[in-house]
Amino acid sequence: MNPVDIIVKKRDGGELTPDEIAFFVDGFTQGRIPDYQVAAWAMAVYFCGMSDAETTALTLAMAGSGDRIDLHDALPPGTVIVDKHSSGGVGDKTTLAVGPVVAACGLPVGKMSGRGLSFTGGTIDKLESIAGWSPDLSESQFRGQLAAVGLVVAGQTANLAPADKALYALRDVTGTVSSLPLIASSIMCKKLAAGADAIVLDVKCGRGAFMTTLPAARDLADLMVAIGTRAGRKMTALITQMEQPLGRAVGNSLEVKEAIATLRGEGPDDFQALTEAVAVEMVLLAGREDAAVAAEQVRGVIASGAALAKFRAFVEAQGGDGRMVDAPERLPLAPVTLAVPAPRSGVVQAIDPRAIGLAAVALGGGRRKKGDPIDHRVGIVVEAKVGDRVAAGAPLATIHAANRVDAEAVSAQVAAAYELGPEPVGALPVVYERVTAATTRP
Amino acid sequence: MNPVDIIVKKRDGGELTPDEIAFFVDGFTQGRIPDYQVAAWAMAVYFCGMSDAETTALTLAMAGSGDRIDLHDALPPGTVIVDKHSSGGVGDKTTLAVGPVVAACGLPVGKMSGRGLSFTGGTIDKLESIAGWSPDLSESQFRGQLAAVGLVVAGQTANLAPADKALYALRDVTGTVSSLPLIASSIMCKKLAAGADAIVLDVKCGRGAFMTTLPAARDLADLMVAIGTRAGRKMTALITQMEQPLGRAVGNSLEVKEAIATLRGEGPDDFQALTEAVAVEMVLLAGREDAAVAAEQVRGVIASGAALAKFRAFVEAQGGDGRMVDAPERLPLAPVTLAVPAPRSGVVQAIDPRAIGLAAVALGGGRRKKGDPIDHRVGIVVEAKVGDRVAAGAPLATIHAANRVDAEAVSAQVAAAYELGPEPVGALPVVYERVTAATTRP
Repeated sequence: MNPVDIIVKKRDGGELTPDEIAFFVDGFTQGRIPDYQVAAWAMAVYFCGMSDAETTALTLAMAGSGDRIDLHDALPPGTVIVDKHSSGGVGDKTTLAVGPVVAACGLPVGKMSGRGLSFTGGTIDKLESIAGWSPDLSESQFRGQLAAVGLVVAGQTANLAPADKALYALRDVTGTVSSLPLIASSIMCKKLAAGADAIVLDVKCGRGAFMTTLPAARDLADLMVAIGTRAGRKMTALITQMEQPLGRAVGNSLEVKEAIATLRGEGPDDFQALTEAVAVEMVLLAGREDAAVAAEQVRGVIASGAALAKFRAFVEAQGGDGRMVDAPERLPLAPVTLAVPAPRSGVVQAIDPRAIGLAAVALGGGRRKKGDPIDHRVGIVVEAKVGDRVAAGAPLATIHAANRVDAEAVSAQVAAAYELGPEPVGALPVVYERVTAATTRP
Repeated sequence: MNPVDIIVKKRDGGELTPDEIAFFVDGFTQGRIPDYQVAAWAMAVYFCGMSDAETTALTLAMAGSGDRIDLHDALPPGTVIVDKHSSGGVGDKTTLAVGPVVAACGLPVGKMSGRGLSFTGGTIDKLESIAGWSPDLSESQFRGQLAAVGLVVAGQTANLAPADKALYALRDVTGTVSSLPLIASSIMCKKLAAGADAIVLDVKCGRGAFMTTLPAARDLADLMVAIGTRAGRKMTALITQMEQPLGRAVGNSLEVKEAIATLRGEGPDDFQALTEAVAVEMVLLAGREDAAVAAEQVRGVIASGAALAKFRAFVEAQGGDGRMVDAPERLPLAPVTLAVPAPRSGVVQAIDPRAIGLAAVALGGGRRKKGDPIDHRVGIVVEAKVGDRVAAGAPLATIHAANRVDAEAVSAQVAAAYELGPEPVGALPVVYERVTAATTRP
């Protein structure tokens, strides 16, 4: 096989065979096929697309390019390992709440997670708000905790899908990021390499997400469900709303606090609903319950305190201070808070989630570039959400900052993220659609 | 400016500004923009094309990426420097015959030329068949000979259009060769850097050419005329037939011999006609004659022996043995000749020029890869051309080889290049169309 022939075949609209795709991915990963050929190929894929079979072959080739994790031997025989993936957004602390809920339902949750960049945060950054908590676990610690506690979140130490890492870096600098098969395979290959038997996808849709329209989000969800199904995994995707920040808290420590409230059943309406919806889908995919029982079980572990207890056990297993879970006011607090008042009375028509996310970064709560230090205390609490009626001078949001200068510096930006108007607006839906192998393409 | 923005603009169908194109070409040439970004951009150009303005900007940017030659100071004031370019084909010795003819008409011809690769030969390889002739001239020798003799052919020593060289090498390995704006700009940038005021393009069309159909050749001719015109050059293109080898001789020494015959007015009909047609266009572009006078002048310098004398003077000026011009049988001859007989009687319907060209390479007369040595003596003489009626056993072609084994090794290949049939076929046209700024797009 010859890389140029493969590029030309794709350029001319041909369907690559799994062998051709494996040859190309392997050659790239091993350094035999140079960047410039991969760049030309990626641009040809951008223009010509890929069939589901090609995208699946690409996903499997990338999934097989590095380590493959198999956690079954740490778990009772027959355990179905259910993973979740959220495509990211502002105020997205879903893993923090969903993980303990499903673990309390008896599903093992062993996640490798990342840190945040740009306007979205990372699960590990958020958990590091808790004094003592560490993501650094050896493989045997990881497996031991998974068996004993049923919930682990570690930093990514394994060499998962290095082909994806290299391809993504190249796409980023060659104008080939926004290709649906390349996006879908990039997400899915890491999930497959991480060893899930079943995957619930939380595909965000809206101004604060990568997919800004429902048709685009649906295409991505359909494709990822198709890939996973072809790869022999059980798949469900929820297309969820990311037109405004999720919940109220944006910022590491603030989000942990909100996740704890949600584990008590006292989270903001939208985040409480999303947490329960994702958890129900995961319980369903584990295959042990029907929908009514799964929903009851999820609500039950929240109401009984089992979900919160699971979170506490998880925090302590990884060296964290469990008292911060019992009393979230012990979490690191920003010394300065500043209310952003409504300039006039009205109804909140829209909140730009990127503007809020970037304001949190500007406060020091996120990273502009990889490796930047972050301040876990700072962030923004959204006091008024879309549909809320506010009086002039009432707080739209509260800024939590390291000092008054920082707080005032982002105040106008936070205010500008809000669109106020006279008309009543309904609360935004939480879940737009549910996609399964049965609802999607044949 | 940012390379990714430029790639994305082109990918999305936008028209790049001259500044953006210059930034990109300059960045690539200087090594600031990496190969992989250029590869992605080239593939985006493949899919989205380029406007005439963009293609002209690309051509000028590449023309300006290295040395620029200006021969005016070696010539009388007001001299119009007319260059020609042939897009290459099998048996294409046009420069060997046209150069002396137009030089004899008083037009200075100073060419930098290249060596052959694959199934087409190079002018310098052909001239090196003449004992002693050398393409290695210093710049002052080049200028001196241009002023004194009016005809010079040198190897390319100047660093002409290095951006094109680098881009072409990259296109070759990324499936982006066959993009019309990239082909046209690659040809034209070298002509512009070489300092011509006026350019006659001989765009080959047919099985033995890069452009196999008339519409494709017309598109290329139109685009190159448009680029040259926008760049302030006088332009004429002839679209000429390359369905069979040009003339009869294919091979270095054999082609020199045929060029000498043509300078005497005794060349094969098609090559004699093409030589005179291209020469007339060059004389016309110099702007001193009308069409009738130009044609008479071209025929006159052939009939008078002035064209042949010019060739002899040129050969001797570059160290060659002028007696080989007077008596072409002194040119190096292959020791073995082998006739390829017609397997049955019939009319020659077609001759595959690539098969003939590759047979000449197989005999040692051309290069499979850069730097291969070549045997100037060997080649193929096409005895029967399309439209000729042959009896069974009569020679279709004569193979000139270093030994009998080599000759026999290509005999079947040469025979297979011929298609014989019962129907009469007319001789193929020499020139299909003439394209000028007036006939092409506004």
